[in-house]
Amino acid sequence: KKNEEASLMENHLCDLTVIPAGRLSAAKLLKASGLNPVVLEARDRVGGRTFTVRNKETKWVDLGGAYIGPTQNRILRLAKEYSIKTYKVNEQEHLVHYVNVSPSVSLTLSMFYPAAASEHTLSDCRSLGRLVKERKFAGGSSQISECMAKELGDRVKLQSPVYRIDQTGDMVVVETVNKETYTARYVVVATPPALNLKMHFNPELPPLRNQLIYRVPMGCVIKCMVYYKENFWRKKGYCGTMVIEEEGAPIGLTLDDTKPDGTVPAIMGFILARKCRKLADLTKEERLRRICEIYSRVLGSEEALHPVHYEEKNWCEEEYSGGCYTAYFPPGTLTQFGRVLREPVGRLYFAGTETASEWSGYMEGAVQAGERAAREVLCAMGKIHQSQIHQPEPESQEVPALPFVTSFWERNLPSVGGFLKVTGVSAVLSAAAAAGLVAYKKGLFPRS
Amino acid sequence: KKNEEASLMENHLCDLTVIPAGRLSAAKLLKASGLNPVVLEARDRVGGRTFTVRNKETKWVDLGGAYIGPTQNRILRLAKEYSIKTYKVNEQEHLVHYVNVSPSVSLTLSMFYPAAASEHTLSDCRSLGRLVKERKFAGGSSQISECMAKELGDRVKLQSPVYRIDQTGDMVVVETVNKETYTARYVVVATPPALNLKMHFNPELPPLRNQLIYRVPMGCVIKCMVYYKENFWRKKGYCGTMVIEEEGAPIGLTLDDTKPDGTVPAIMGFILARKCRKLADLTKEERLRRICEIYSRVLGSEEALHPVHYEEKNWCEEEYSGGCYTAYFPPGTLTQFGRVLREPVGRLYFAGTETASEWSGYMEGAVQAGERAAREVLCAMGKIHQSQIHQPEPESQEVPALPFVTSFWERNLPSVGGFLKVTGVSAVLSAAAAAGLVAYKKGLFPRS
Repeated sequence: KKNEEASLMENHLCDLTVIPAGRLSAAKLLKASGLNPVVLEARDRVGGRTFTVRNKETKWVDLGGAYIGPTQNRILRLAKEYSIKTYKVNEQEHLVHYVNVSPSVSLTLSMFYPAAASEHTLSDCRSLGRLVKERKFAGGSSQISECMAKELGDRVKLQSPVYRIDQTGDMVVVETVNKETYTARYVVVATPPALNLKMHFNPELPPLRNQLIYRVPMGCVIKCMVYYKENFWRKKGYCGTMVIEEEGAPIGLTLDDTKPDGTVPAIMGFILARKCRKLADLTKEERLRRICEIYSRVLGSEEALHPVHYEEKNWCEEEYSGGCYTAYFPPGTLTQFGRVLREPVGRLYFAGTETASEWSGYMEGAVQAGERAAREVLCAMGKIHQSQIHQPEPESQEVPALPFVTSFWERNLPSVGGFLKVTGVSAVLSAAAAAGLVAYKKGLFPRS
Repeated sequence: KKNEEASLMENHLCDLTVIPAGRLSAAKLLKASGLNPVVLEARDRVGGRTFTVRNKETKWVDLGGAYIGPTQNRILRLAKEYSIKTYKVNEQEHLVHYVNVSPSVSLTLSMFYPAAASEHTLSDCRSLGRLVKERKFAGGSSQISECMAKELGDRVKLQSPVYRIDQTGDMVVVETVNKETYTARYVVVATPPALNLKMHFNPELPPLRNQLIYRVPMGCVIKCMVYYKENFWRKKGYCGTMVIEEEGAPIGLTLDDTKPDGTVPAIMGFILARKCRKLADLTKEERLRRICEIYSRVLGSEEALHPVHYEEKNWCEEEYSGGCYTAYFPPGTLTQFGRVLREPVGRLYFAGTETASEWSGYMEGAVQAGERAAREVLCAMGKIHQSQIHQPEPESQEVPALPFVTSFWERNLPSVGGFLKVTGVSAVLSAAAAAGLVAYKKGLFPRS
């Protein structure tokens, strides 16, 4: 038994590529369990699809994953451990829902939702905003990966994209583009599923996984940050949240990105899907111009046309992300291939936010998946029992889940089925009553 | 100018991986133009998605792409050059169209189409069979790739999967998993689009191509050959073509695969899509049992239950194919990403049957794309004019396109729009006539 431990320590336990908190949280858990993990990171930085840039114009800015909210307890636990504070995204003032269905007839609606209303009973987009995009990390989301990487020290190898995984021997042999070879007993592959294709496998992956990885395309997004001298929208009573429905508008959703202390006023906006594909060919300046134009129109403010700085990140150009925010599963993919999504292949275990069973596609999902994969390895080594692989997470005390406040009608309205039943029964009763009335009037009942 | 030629000859001109006739036909054309191409093949054999196996039980059998037909003139030209004969798939006798909509109510229809009818006026599947699957190559389809490979000699490097393409210098540097490095002025990447993901690019691919390659999944198919002692179906008046519509049936389409001289009686069948995913987990024996069972039921013959040999190939397990027959483009993919499908990236040119403008997904498409990409390289070198890149192919004299024989009604029936117009006009006229008749009868017209 001693020998086994020793041979383990001699070799590297590897955990591969990309996912932000995913691969690092797996490695962190394995290290805490007394193992010797090595993290092979394809890029020249940690953080994956989170990406905090620091410069004098912005102080710091999250050009990748940034938002967190209640029930994302694992990422909140990591933040707390590293003393990274969270702050609420500004939603004090009114948001704007701008709908421009047809420019040719100039049908334009502007709607305002009072921000002080009950927490979860507003429109979907509003409640989505509250839940999914409630908070950010002060100082940027990449800090969590950076802190974990610091803790893991030289176990984290940057610029080491894996191109080959050989499981034909007793140990798994992993080769990187920068010509290094790692030998390990187990490997955690923590990439978006399709990025498994970057690796050449020996033996080949099983047929269903080999096909799955062609069927999970990555989303299409440019994240855009427009900086202004002043927070003019708040003066007008707007919080900075805009929901924009207009085919020609580059941006569909914005949020205030001003720092929590009120400095560096900014609006964050997403260019998504087909709009991203259309606007990717423009120059950065032209994109900024179009973004400011729609902000000006929606906020009814000339000041929106005069930004002082601009940051953007087109995630479609990243070879080791393939896109953002996450992989999507076209219709039929989960039903036909879902069962092999996190099924181990020999000594390979699969992490990455796409394999999470909660908050898949979010930082929280990446941590959940990374820790689950790490425990799968521990279970395979006989260190924990199978029942310990999937573990619930205690609720964050700082960011508790808010109760869903429901109205009388939300609580008491019947289901569609129930409603039809009630309608049907009422109709029968009404018909019977009407028939009775007619019969009575026609004198078909004996009068006493 | 002499120097340029010399330096070109010193370096390898590379053309990469997978597609059967595609990469080899590109190399063949480049060699014929006096260049020095190198073919890097990922597998231990040439042919890609064609795969001719030779053994005593079958003589030879095509477990991959096999069928050709009229208008596929490029692949027919290559076959003629190498004296590879074609033969017609047997369709002398009746085909069976078996429809079993609901086994619980035993609704079963068997329909017979007379094979002697006019060439192209039968059901879609029949005419599809005639056109797309009219012929096969005597001796197997891989012969074409094998002949080209022989011609190219040691320029073809087997077991050389490419994992890295570096375009940052004056020359393109290509690295293979078997640790070899090739330097070339131009590279033709002749893989299914998604298999570009097997390579790490420096610089990264442009955003739209980087996203395209995640959106072109490979089809799902097991090709199955059941061998019998005797050609019992022909004795019963069936040609061997079965179109089977029954959810529980493993096979949807079969064709006679008996050798042209009548030896080695066999039926070829495809297990496709969701059926492939369901049946892949069974043992080979169990799959054969289920296939024979449905053949027995559809042909009404006990003899179908007693095969003498079985060959199958599950293309989903091939790492360097990803699946078969071809990549498919889910809705929106061609409209949103199609324009970069064959757009060169620096010194990389893209071939592969998926990039063909005719017969995409077929051997013919692979040749068309390979030759087009080769001419793109020749054009970039200044050796041919841009107008010469896309070239039409003279019609095969041996396998000419058959005229579409249309009936009187097919020629003269109006379009749906036209039909509605005629109906509308008739209705108005009829109504007017009827009104006239009524008016006449009622004596509303003055009688003279």
